[in-house]
Amino acid sequence: MVGQSGGPTAVVNASVAGVIAEALNHECVEEVYGSLNGVLGILQEDLIDLASESQQQIRALKHTPGAALGTCRYKLKKQADFDRILEVFKAHNIRYFFYIGGNDSQDTADKISKLAQAQGYELRVIGIPKTIDNDLPTTDHTPGYASTVKYLATTVREMACDNDAMGQGDLVSIVEVMGRSAGWIAAGAALAKRRDHPHDPPHLILLPEIPFNQEKVLEDVRRVLKREKYCMIVVAEGLVDADGNYLAADAATDAFGHATLGGAGDTLGEIISANIPGSKVRIARPGIAQRCASHAASKTDADEAFLVGQAAVKAAIAGETDKMVTLIRGEADHYTVETSLAPLSEIANGIKKLPREWINEDGVSMNFQFLRYAQPLIVGEVALTYDTGVPVFARLDKSRVDKVLPAYEV
Amino acid sequence: MVGQSGGPTAVVNASVAGVIAEALNHECVEEVYGSLNGVLGILQEDLIDLASESQQQIRALKHTPGAALGTCRYKLKKQADFDRILEVFKAHNIRYFFYIGGNDSQDTADKISKLAQAQGYELRVIGIPKTIDNDLPTTDHTPGYASTVKYLATTVREMACDNDAMGQGDLVSIVEVMGRSAGWIAAGAALAKRRDHPHDPPHLILLPEIPFNQEKVLEDVRRVLKREKYCMIVVAEGLVDADGNYLAADAATDAFGHATLGGAGDTLGEIISANIPGSKVRIARPGIAQRCASHAASKTDADEAFLVGQAAVKAAIAGETDKMVTLIRGEADHYTVETSLAPLSEIANGIKKLPREWINEDGVSMNFQFLRYAQPLIVGEVALTYDTGVPVFARLDKSRVDKVLPAYEV
Repeated sequence: MVGQSGGPTAVVNASVAGVIAEALNHECVEEVYGSLNGVLGILQEDLIDLASESQQQIRALKHTPGAALGTCRYKLKKQADFDRILEVFKAHNIRYFFYIGGNDSQDTADKISKLAQAQGYELRVIGIPKTIDNDLPTTDHTPGYASTVKYLATTVREMACDNDAMGQGDLVSIVEVMGRSAGWIAAGAALAKRRDHPHDPPHLILLPEIPFNQEKVLEDVRRVLKREKYCMIVVAEGLVDADGNYLAADAATDAFGHATLGGAGDTLGEIISANIPGSKVRIARPGIAQRCASHAASKTDADEAFLVGQAAVKAAIAGETDKMVTLIRGEADHYTVETSLAPLSEIANGIKKLPREWINEDGVSMNFQFLRYAQPLIVGEVALTYDTGVPVFARLDKSRVDKVLPAYEV
Repeated sequence: MVGQSGGPTAVVNASVAGVIAEALNHECVEEVYGSLNGVLGILQEDLIDLASESQQQIRALKHTPGAALGTCRYKLKKQADFDRILEVFKAHNIRYFFYIGGNDSQDTADKISKLAQAQGYELRVIGIPKTIDNDLPTTDHTPGYASTVKYLATTVREMACDNDAMGQGDLVSIVEVMGRSAGWIAAGAALAKRRDHPHDPPHLILLPEIPFNQEKVLEDVRRVLKREKYCMIVVAEGLVDADGNYLAADAATDAFGHATLGGAGDTLGEIISANIPGSKVRIARPGIAQRCASHAASKTDADEAFLVGQAAVKAAIAGETDKMVTLIRGEADHYTVETSLAPLSEIANGIKKLPREWINEDGVSMNFQFLRYAQPLIVGEVALTYDTGVPVFARLDKSRVDKVLPAYEV
């Protein structure tokens, strides 16, 4: 059984494809099921038969954005939920469970596994890393991150061409990007700069790690506008002030209690307009587009997402459990990567922070350590199939597995 | 002399490349100059020698976004401006002038030509169409439009995969697109739908042509949320209510007196949040990214942008003047296009409206007539050159032509 959880990425379906491809290599695997909408699908016994999907569609999954199995942010709360999951597993003889997701999802997988052990039900649980936030501990990076960063670096470089044509020392171009608690994504926009061209756009990167200081930012903008025709700012949605308050916060919180953010770019734009007379502020907010841009995905990322899916199955069949697949970078000068495993308990709810020493002294740009880390991850372009000018994505049949249990109220 | 004006597009530099390539085929052309920042560069005698650029860079121009010569929204106001332009033309023996732009730019070209004629200075002026707005009369469509639409249709289809995974009958996903007075761009997002799948996203397209009716839109959203897991809305920035007031208007206006817009998506999102309990609203605003996304440009569009540049030079050398190059679609079932010419005076400040009969009765979707019109324009993908994961764009040397006149105060 494989399920997807949390926010989708441009390459999370590649991990599903990797799981299916590898699982069907093993005689001991009788069926490959997908749970619709993560743990919700297990609770409600909404399972699909992935082995019956056409090879064509599974192949297309590798470059299909979103989460083809559906996803959820449902948090298993009560004991009855956990009991129900084991009941469904038992009813369908599920012995391998692969959960693709971020911190919260790995926590869920860990709890399910511990319960199975407590009840003496033989089950191997392997987590598969996925998050554009790149904030999972123990893995060098997480599948999904590089494609978001490649898309944003491409977009920044393209917007720079436009801004360069329009600006006359007055244009302030703001791109608001995702990144709730860590600046990994915003930092990645630095890859739009050419090597050894520190003055290339983005000129200012505002990270959640560096408290927002209005006077300093205004000074930075004025300095850039003196030097350049325009000032391009990449701002993380999770920008906070010195007191830890979000620059723009919405009262709403998601099911895990995280604040849902948005509007840091607008707030910043208002501050700049009000304080720099004559400035022309333009704001772009790619929103969800930045996590599903398969047409601009990193081939390295897509390949690695497939790889971690395969590795999870191999590990489970080799007898591993309660682990998440991790990516380990080789020591060589040229980029290499291999998979390893780390205990789920180490990943669950852990956060990998953007190292402070990878941010330059100016607080608004990234140094060579970050660039050396991030650059290899975005290499390579994927070749999508187009029909009448628009990419064609996988559409699964989603042939339902017969329900054998009474309904369960979520 | 060639100049660029108005907002850049993903393919406007292809037209510059077309002008240069064609001009150098003709013995009668001694020099090929570019004016920096449109007419501003002529006024200030800021001219560059385009023939001295490397062939490599000119070739790369074809897929470089922005406006490589710089652009402007400067409106020639006083007689002294026009006199100065002729003075610069005379000083550098400019006999052919190609101005790439939209309505306002063609108006400027027309006025310059008329003044030259009045003064007996032999000058041939040919306009080259460019605008993502697709609102120039007499031409079937305008270079730049299709690439914006292809990018947005691709983005909508990708976001739909993401929304489909996340939505549970509650998700309202809004994409705010450009389009001040006409809905050409928003309408183009309809190309994200598969043929004969009218229920595919985008579910609602809100056009400036159809006055915003809050009750109807809320009803439409509720209806879609009953049927689908999410409701994707594409809204034009220029959406107006029944009284002609912009849904979200900013006090600022540009140099031509047009209101600068933004925020229709946010306003719409607030209305939906406030009126549909439990709805989760997500807003994307690609902003400038939608007019410079060369990585997702239409090959048809890029080729045609090059073609109109070539055609302009051919026409001028054949003795034509005071015309703009137009694109004429063939009558055949399969898409063909050839260039023609139309008087500048017919284009200047004219507007081609999105035909009302191409919008379905429901007011929020496009019918087969629009799809038949727009679909062929987005066919084909361009192959960019990538270096370390990011596209590489042309960088002109911009070797300055020696100034021979006294400075001029703009």
